[in-house]
Amino acid sequence: MREIVVFSGSAHRPLASAICDSLGVQLSAVEIKRFSNDCLQAQLQANCRQRDVYIVQPLVPPTQEHLMELLLMVDAARGASAAQITAVIPHYAYARSDKKDASRISLGGRLVADMLATAGVSRVLTMTLHAPQVHGFFSVPVDHLTALGVLADHFAGQDLSDTVVVSPDLGNAKTATQFARLLGVPVAAGSKRRLADDRVVIDDIVGDVAGKRALVLDDEIATGGSIVELLDKLQEIGCTGASVACTHGLFVGKAVDRLRDHPFIEEVVTTDTVPPADWPELKVRSVADLFAEAISRVHAGESISSMFDGVDPTLGPPQPQLPFPA
Amino acid sequence: MREIVVFSGSAHRPLASAICDSLGVQLSAVEIKRFSNDCLQAQLQANCRQRDVYIVQPLVPPTQEHLMELLLMVDAARGASAAQITAVIPHYAYARSDKKDASRISLGGRLVADMLATAGVSRVLTMTLHAPQVHGFFSVPVDHLTALGVLADHFAGQDLSDTVVVSPDLGNAKTATQFARLLGVPVAAGSKRRLADDRVVIDDIVGDVAGKRALVLDDEIATGGSIVELLDKLQEIGCTGASVACTHGLFVGKAVDRLRDHPFIEEVVTTDTVPPADWPELKVRSVADLFAEAISRVHAGESISSMFDGVDPTLGPPQPQLPFPA
Amino acid sequence: MREIVVFSGSAHRPLASAICDSLGVQLSAVEIKRFSNDCLQAQLQANCRQRDVYIVQPLVPPTQEHLMELLLMVDAARGASAAQITAVIPHYAYARSDKKDASRISLGGRLVADMLATAGVSRVLTMTLHAPQVHGFFSVPVDHLTALGVLADHFAGQDLSDTVVVSPDLGNAKTATQFARLLGVPVAAGSKRRLADDRVVIDDIVGDVAGKRALVLDDEIATGGSIVELLDKLQEIGCTGASVACTHGLFVGKAVDRLRDHPFIEEVVTTDTVPPADWPELKVRSVADLFAEAISRVHAGESISSMFDGVDPTLGPPQPQLPFPA
Amino acid sequence: MREIVVFSGSAHRPLASAICDSLGVQLSAVEIKRFSNDCLQAQLQANCRQRDVYIVQPLVPPTQEHLMELLLMVDAARGASAAQITAVIPHYAYARSDKKDASRISLGGRLVADMLATAGVSRVLTMTLHAPQVHGFFSVPVDHLTALGVLADHFAGQDLSDTVVVSPDLGNAKTATQFARLLGVPVAAGSKRRLADDRVVIDDIVGDVAGKRALVLDDEIATGGSIVELLDKLQEIGCTGASVACTHGLFVGKAVDRLRDHPFIEEVVTTDTVPPADWPELKVRSVADLFAEAISRVHAGESISSMFDGVDPTLGPPQPQLPFPA
Amino acid sequence: MREIVVFSGSAHRPLASAICDSLGVQLSAVEIKRFSNDCLQAQLQANCRQRDVYIVQPLVPPTQEHLMELLLMVDAARGASAAQITAVIPHYAYARSDKKDASRISLGGRLVADMLATAGVSRVLTMTLHAPQVHGFFSVPVDHLTALGVLADHFAGQDLSDTVVVSPDLGNAKTATQFARLLGVPVAAGSKRRLADDRVVIDDIVGDVAGKRALVLDDEIATGGSIVELLDKLQEIGCTGASVACTHGLFVGKAVDRLRDHPFIEEVVTTDTVPPADWPELKVRSVADLFAEAISRVHAGESISSMFDGVDPTLGPPQPQLPFPA
Amino acid sequence: MREIVVFSGSAHRPLASAICDSLGVQLSAVEIKRFSNDCLQAQLQANCRQRDVYIVQPLVPPTQEHLMELLLMVDAARGASAAQITAVIPHYAYARSDKKDASRISLGGRLVADMLATAGVSRVLTMTLHAPQVHGFFSVPVDHLTALGVLADHFAGQDLSDTVVVSPDLGNAKTATQFARLLGVPVAAGSKRRLADDRVVIDDIVGDVAGKRALVLDDEIATGGSIVELLDKLQEIGCTGASVACTHGLFVGKAVDRLRDHPFIEEVVTTDTVPPADWPELKVRSVADLFAEAISRVHAGESISSMFDGVDPTLGPPQPQLPFPA
Repeated sequence: MREIVVFSGSAHRPLASAICDSLGVQLSAVEIKRFSNDCLQAQLQANCRQRDVYIVQPLVPPTQEHLMELLLMVDAARGASAAQITAVIPHYAYARSDKKDASRISLGGRLVADMLATAGVSRVLTMTLHAPQVHGFFSVPVDHLTALGVLADHFAGQDLSDTVVVSPDLGNAKTATQFARLLGVPVAAGSKRRLADDRVVIDDIVGDVAGKRALVLDDEIATGGSIVELLDKLQEIGCTGASVACTHGLFVGKAVDRLRDHPFIEEVVTTDTVPPADWPELKVRSVADLFAEAISRVHAGESISSMFDGVDPTLGPPQPQLPFPA
Repeated sequence: MREIVVFSGSAHRPLASAICDSLGVQLSAVEIKRFSNDCLQAQLQANCRQRDVYIVQPLVPPTQEHLMELLLMVDAARGASAAQITAVIPHYAYARSDKKDASRISLGGRLVADMLATAGVSRVLTMTLHAPQVHGFFSVPVDHLTALGVLADHFAGQDLSDTVVVSPDLGNAKTATQFARLLGVPVAAGSKRRLADDRVVIDDIVGDVAGKRALVLDDEIATGGSIVELLDKLQEIGCTGASVACTHGLFVGKAVDRLRDHPFIEEVVTTDTVPPADWPELKVRSVADLFAEAISRVHAGESISSMFDGVDPTLGPPQPQLPFPA
Repeated sequence: MREIVVFSGSAHRPLASAICDSLGVQLSAVEIKRFSNDCLQAQLQANCRQRDVYIVQPLVPPTQEHLMELLLMVDAARGASAAQITAVIPHYAYARSDKKDASRISLGGRLVADMLATAGVSRVLTMTLHAPQVHGFFSVPVDHLTALGVLADHFAGQDLSDTVVVSPDLGNAKTATQFARLLGVPVAAGSKRRLADDRVVIDDIVGDVAGKRALVLDDEIATGGSIVELLDKLQEIGCTGASVACTHGLFVGKAVDRLRDHPFIEEVVTTDTVPPADWPELKVRSVADLFAEAISRVHAGESISSMFDGVDPTLGPPQPQLPFPA
Repeated sequence: MREIVVFSGSAHRPLASAICDSLGVQLSAVEIKRFSNDCLQAQLQANCRQRDVYIVQPLVPPTQEHLMELLLMVDAARGASAAQITAVIPHYAYARSDKKDASRISLGGRLVADMLATAGVSRVLTMTLHAPQVHGFFSVPVDHLTALGVLADHFAGQDLSDTVVVSPDLGNAKTATQFARLLGVPVAAGSKRRLADDRVVIDDIVGDVAGKRALVLDDEIATGGSIVELLDKLQEIGCTGASVACTHGLFVGKAVDRLRDHPFIEEVVTTDTVPPADWPELKVRSVADLFAEAISRVHAGESISSMFDGVDPTLGPPQPQLPFPA
Repeated sequence: MREIVVFSGSAHRPLASAICDSLGVQLSAVEIKRFSNDCLQAQLQANCRQRDVYIVQPLVPPTQEHLMELLLMVDAARGASAAQITAVIPHYAYARSDKKDASRISLGGRLVADMLATAGVSRVLTMTLHAPQVHGFFSVPVDHLTALGVLADHFAGQDLSDTVVVSPDLGNAKTATQFARLLGVPVAAGSKRRLADDRVVIDDIVGDVAGKRALVLDDEIATGGSIVELLDKLQEIGCTGASVACTHGLFVGKAVDRLRDHPFIEEVVTTDTVPPADWPELKVRSVADLFAEAISRVHAGESISSMFDGVDPTLGPPQPQLPFPA
Repeated sequence: MREIVVFSGSAHRPLASAICDSLGVQLSAVEIKRFSNDCLQAQLQANCRQRDVYIVQPLVPPTQEHLMELLLMVDAARGASAAQITAVIPHYAYARSDKKDASRISLGGRLVADMLATAGVSRVLTMTLHAPQVHGFFSVPVDHLTALGVLADHFAGQDLSDTVVVSPDLGNAKTATQFARLLGVPVAAGSKRRLADDRVVIDDIVGDVAGKRALVLDDEIATGGSIVELLDKLQEIGCTGASVACTHGLFVGKAVDRLRDHPFIEEVVTTDTVPPADWPELKVRSVADLFAEAISRVHAGESISSMFDGVDPTLGPPQPQLPFPA
C-alpha cells in the first residue's frame, strides 16, 4: 500500500489529527498565507507526487474562507501531481442550497460541487448530506458515510424500556426508523409544516409517545429553533423527557442557550464533523475512526458499503431482492 | 421576433400540435427511421439555421426509445446550426432516479441530464419534477412550470363548501397547501410511510377530513396503488367522497381498473403532459397553452416566473422580503 | 495483477459468461430494475473500488434498451469509484450511422460515442466496426479486434483447392484479400452499386470465380438481402456453390428464411458477438477467447496488436517500413 | 443584417478576396508575425466584437504553418469577443488521416478537429471531405459544400454525345453517378484495388467505355499517380480520349509533368479550393461564389442544403420518403 | 439595443450605481441571503432572460465573501437564462497569485479564473491586472481597461514644468513612460530589488530626478510600504516633493497612517475601482464613466480598443507596422 | 517500478538519446510520415499500454512542424492506452506569446498549452519558462526545472576573485542573484528599457562592475542583439571582459557571427535544451541528466523540488516560514 498523505485546512484540525491517529499516519503540514489584499494562498509541505492525497475540511463558519482554503489546497495538490485527491468534507454545508424554491436564485449545492471538480477533486468523502439528491450534484464519485451507528452506540448501554425515537419531520422518518431498529425501540415523527423562513409549527406527532422518553434524532442542529418547538410539543402531549442526537452539531446563534437549560432535555449528543460548540455538557462522539476506516478502504480498494452492513440498508452492501439468475 | 421552429418526436405528437396551434406556428416535420439493426436516425425536415428550435418529447413508455429519439433530434438540430435548442420535456420520468438509496446504483436523473447536455441541449422546459432537487442535476438552464393553476381552474366552478385538499404525503404538503389557497379551502395530508418498494401504508391523516369531500392532489399517478390506499383511509375516517387530481397521469398497469370503478371516486382529473390513458371518463385539462406561453416568453426574453404570479410563490416572481437598500 | 471485475447487461449474458470462463474469473452480478414508468436502474453487486471494470454489452435489439442499460451500468461503476471502466461492445450497431448522407440528419455513431464518454467510459473494446473511420468518433481509446483469424480457422481444415474468397463489395476487398491470404486462396469481389435505399444491384464480379466454390465474407449480415443478390450473381456466372462467413450475424427479419434453404449455400458461419439466431444449422465460432485475451492484456499492460500478428497487418504490430535511423 | 467580417491567413488570399468581392464586403487585414524563434502571432486589424467572423484558410502546404496561422487567428477572434467564428477551410487536408489503418498511429483528422474546437471555432465550412465520415470528427457544426455543380457547368456547353463519366474507384461512384445525371450521360467506374502503400492497380473498368470519351471525376489529385494508371487502362480498353475533373487540384510532386503532356488528356479542370498550380493550361473554375453564398446564408439563417437542390441529393434539402403523418 | 441589466454584489455598490447613472439605466436589485450555517444565496430581482447581464464586484476584503457572492450571482443569472454574463471586476485581487514562486503552492489567479468560467461567466471586464500574463489565465474573453487617461487628466491642469514621472520599479516602467508622454514630462524609475518577503530595498533611481517634483505612479497600493521607501530614496537624492497616483488604492493596514502625514507627499490620487479608504484628503477620480462606456460598447458590438487610442498603445487599436499587402 | 517508455520527435533526438542513456532505457522508435499533401502522421513503435510515456520535443525551428509532431505523438500514445503521457519540452518557445501587448492578438502561450491538453498530455516537464506566469497557462501539472546548477558548475572551478554576475535586466535579477550566491560573487544588473520593438537601449548598470570580469546570465539568446548592447555598455564602463551563460542557446540569425568574434567575450556557455548551433567553440553543458533524474522521480513518485534544494529556493522544497502549529 502506498503512503497516505493527509492535509488539513484550518476549519477543524483536531478532527484531521484524530483521523490521522486512527490511520497511523502523520498529518502533513500546510501553510495558509493571507496577503495584504485578503487573498489566500496554500502551500502543501509534503510531497504529493503520485500519492493519494486526502484534504480534511468541513464547511463551517467562516464558510467562504474555509471553502476557498479547500479549493486552493486541492489546486496545489493537483499542481503537485497528486495521483488522486479526495476532499474529505465531513459537513457539506452548501447541501442546504439544493433547490430553486424561488425564482432566479443561485443553487449553491451544485455550484460548489462543480467548483470542487474544477479545482481538481477526484472524489468526495462526506457524511449525512442534508438531502440525498445532493449526491447527484457531484460529477465525481461521492462516498457518503453515516453516523447512525456511532450515535446508536451512545445509547445502546442505556435503559431503553420506555423509549421512543422521534424524528422532527416525516421526511426524515426513514433514518429515524432505522435508528429505532438499531436500538430495538419504536419510532414516532413530528409532522412539521414550515410556515415561514423563520418560524416552524409542529402540527402533530405521528406515533405513540405519551408516557415515554423521546430520543429526538436530527441530521443537523443550527439555531435549535425547530428542536425546541418539537420538544414543547412532546412535553405538551405527555412525553416524560427527551434526549437529542444529531450528526452535525453546529449550535449557532442562541442554540446553546436554548438547549443547555431546557428543563425537558436530559442530554444532547452529537459528533465531531464540525468543531464542538463551547458547551462542556455536550456529549461528542467522534467519527474520526469512521473517516479513517473509509480512507483506508478507499486507499486499499475495499468496499465502503460493507462498513454499514446492518447499520443502514441504504448505505450498506447491495441486497439482491431476487436470486440472481445464472 | 424570429420564427419559432417546433419539432415533435413520436412520444406525444398531439401535445406538440396543440402547443403549435396555441403559438400560431406549424409543427415542423421529423422523419424517425429505424434501421434493420434497430438503431434509430432522426431527420429534421425544416431549416434550423440560426433559429430557436424546440423539441417536444415527454419521457413516456417506451421510455428508452423516446429518450433516444429526443437525443438524436437534438443532435440533428445542433448539426444543422440551430441557435438555441430547447428540449421541451413535459414529463421527465428519470427524475425518479434522483438518489443513491442503495449502494452502487446508477443515478439516472443526473445521467440523462448530462446526456442531454452532451447531445447539445441549451435549455430544458419541463413541468413538475418529482423532486425539486432534480433541477440541480442539469448543467443547462431549466424552466420549471406548474400545472397547479390549470388544475385549480377545473375545480374553481364547483361547490367547494365542504371540501378539503388532501396531499398523499407530508413531503408534498407544500404544493397541496398552495392548491388549497387557490381554491379557498383547508388542507390535510396523509402521513405516508413507504414500507417496501411495492407496498405503501398510510398511517394517518393529518388535518380534519371527516364529513368532507376530499380533493386528492398528487404530482404523478403510475400504478395508482398509493392513491387507492389513501382513498381507503379517507373513507375509513369519514370522508364523504373524493376527487383525484394529478399533473402526470401515467395510469400504467392496473391503474385504470383500480380507479375507474372505485366507488368512492367522483372524478379523476389530469393533464396532457403524457398521452392520455384509454379511459373515456378521465378528465384531461391541457397544459399546451402553458407550454406555448412559456416558449413564447423564452423566445421573446420575457419572464416566465411572472406567469405564475399568484399561482405558486416558488415559481412566481421574486418577492423581496425586505425593502432593497438604496 | 489486480482482480478483474466483469459485469454483463442483459444483451448477451452467455458471451459474458464465456469470456469470464476463459479469463478464469466469476461473472459479477448486476440487477437491472425497470420502474413502473419504464425507466431503468442498474445496481452492480460486486465491489468496483479502484478495480478495472469490464462491462459486456453488444448493441443488439432492443438496441435502445441495451444501450441505456450499458450507460447506467457505466454510471454506476463510475459512482462506485472504479479505477478504469472498459465498455466491451462486441457489436457497435450505431457504427452504421457514420455520415450525413442527407441534410439535417443525426449522426448516431458519434453521438453514442460521446454519450459513453459522458457516462464515464475509459476505454472501448469492440470488434469489426462497420467503417474504420468510426474509430475516430470516440474521444477515449478504442481497442479494435478482428474475427478474421477465428473465421479462417473454421475453414482451415477444409479442402480449399477450388475455392475463392469473395467480398460483396470492393470497399471491403482489403479485408477479404487478407482472409484469402490466410487461407492461401485467390480473392474476388462484387462491384456493388447501391441504386436506391431499398434496392441493390450487383453489376459484376471482379476476379475469376467460374467453376469455383465461393467463400463469401462480410462484416455483418442483417436482413441478408444483399448476400442473396450476390449469391444469385455468383450462381449466374458459374460458381459451383458458396459458403458464407460473417463477424456479426444478426439475421433479422427474413434473413434466416432467405438463407437457410438457399440451394446454393453450403454453410453459414458466424461468431457470437451477438446472440445466435434461432437456426440450429448455423455454425457459430466463439470470439470469447479473443475478448478474454484482450481483457487480460489490457489489464496486464500488454500489447493487443501482437494478438493479430500475421492475421491482419492493420491491427497487427507496427511494421517499420524503413530501418529506424539511429 | 449585421456586418460580415472576413479574414484570410496566408494560405490562399486570392480566394478570400474573391469570396469578399462576391459578398460585397472588404477583406479585413490580419498581421501574421514570425518571431526570431519561429513562433507565429496573429493580429486581427478589424473590430470583431459581437460580429460573425469568417476566417478563410485551406490546409495547403506548408500545411503545419497554415494550420497554426488558422488556430492563432481563431484564438485572436475569440479573445476579441467575436459572436461566432466560422473556419472556412475549402480543403481540409487532414481528412486523409481518418482511420487507424495501422496500430499506434495518430488520427490527425480527429485531432485537428478537436484543436479547432479548442481554439474557439463555432462552425466549419468546408468542401468535399475525403471521406464523409470525417464530418463526424467535429464536435461543432460542419457545413459541407460540393463543387459538383460548378464542375458540371464547365462541361455543360460541350458536345457530350459520346461521353461517359468515369469514377476512379467504386467507392467514389455515387458522386460520379450524380455528376453523370447532371450531364445526362452514362457512368462507369474503375475497380481500384490498392495492393501496396505505393502501388495501385486498376483491375478493371465497370461499365461501357469503349469508343467513348471519358470524363474522369475525382475529389482530389495530389501526385496524379492513380489518375495516370486509370487513363492507361481507359486507353487500353478503347476510350477515345479523356478529360479530368477534380475539386481539390493539389498537383504536387510530378503531377503537373505527368498530366500536362499526357497524350490522352484533352483538358484538366479543377477549382480554386487550393492555390492553382503553375500550369497555364489548367482550367480553374472558381468556388468563391459558392462559399460567398454559403457565408451569406449562414449569416442570414437560410438553408444551405437548398443551394444544392437538384445538384446532389446528399447535400440537398431533405426529401421525405413517405408523406408525413398529420 | 436590448436593455442592459446591471447587478451589484455588496463589495462596492456606489461604483455600480455610478456606472448605471452613466449608462442611464437602473441598478437592478439583488438579495444576498446568509443562512444560519454561514452559507450565502443570491437572488436576482430583475428578469435576465435573453438579456446581457453585467455583475459589478471588485474582489476587495472580505475577499472570499465577495468572490462567493459574485460566483453565486453568476450562477443565478445563468440559471435564469441570461444571454451573456459579463463579470465586471474592476480590481481582480487574485491576480497577485500569478506564479509558482515556491513549490507546491496554489495558483489562485488561474483557479479563480477557472471558477468564474465554471459558474457561467461569458466575459470579464477588468482594469489594470497586476501582471499582463494574467489575461492568459482566463478561458473567456477579457476586456482590459486602463485608468491611465483618468489619472493623467487629474494632473493635466497643474504646472508640470519641473516634474518627472517615477515608476517604483523598472518592470512597471513601460506604463510610467506612457504616462509621462501623456503629460509631456520625463520619466525615471526605481531599481527595486526585493531582498526578502517582508523587506524591499530600492538600490537606485534610474533617470534624473534631483531638483524636481516626482509623480510616483503605481498600479496598486496596499500597505504602502514600498511607496514610502521610494519616497525616502527620492528625498535623499534631492527631489523637491512628490505626488502619488495609483489605480487600485486599497490602503490597508497602516497605509493611511504612513501616507497621510508624510511630509514629502503633496497629494495622493487614486480611482474608485475599490471602495475609498477612510481618508478625506485622498483624491479619488472615478472610473465609472470608463466602465459604463466599455459596457455600452460591449453591448453595441463596438471596439473597446478605440477608447484608448492615444492613451495606451498596448490597449489602443492595432497599428499595422507595415502597409498591408493587397 | 514499471518500465519507462521514451519517444522522441525529430526536433532534438540527441538530447532524447542522452536522457535515455542516463535513465538506462532504450529510446523507443517513432515513425513520422509526411503525406504528399504535407500532412504528418506519427506511429509509435513500442507498446504504450498502461505505461508511463515520455515524449521529448523542444519547440525549436521549424517550430510549427515540431509542435504538430508532438501533438500527433501524444494523440497516438493516448489512443494506444498510455497510463500517463508527459510532454518533455525542454524549450517551450511559445512562452514568449504570454500577454496581449496589443489589441486583438493571439495568445500563443495559452493556446498551445490548451492544444497539448486537448491532444491528451497528462503533465509537462520543461525548463526555464520565459515568464513564470506561463506556468498558469497549463491546465495540467507542470514540472519546471532550472539549469542554474548546471551552469554554475561550469564556472565553479574557475578563478572568480574579480568576477561579478550581471543580469541583462532587473526583471531577471532574482535569478542572477541566486546564481551569484551559488558562485559566491556579487551581482549587478542592466536597467534595460525597450524603446521600440527593434531597438533596445541599456541606460545604465546597477551595481559595481568596473575593473571586474562579468558573467552575463540570460534565460535565452536568440539573435544576440541585446547581449551585444549589454557587452558594449559593460566595456564602456570599465569591465575587463565577459563570459556569457544562458539556458536556451538558440543563436538564430546573425547571433553566432555577432558573438563568435566579439573581442570582449571570453566564452559562451549554454545547455542542450535546443540543438547546438554550428559553432565549435560554444561550450554546451548537458541537461540530459537533470531531465533523466526528473523523469525518474516523476515515475517513482519522488519529489522534484528536492532536486533543487540549495540551487534555487523558488523551485526547491518548501521552507516553512514559521514553525507549524501542532
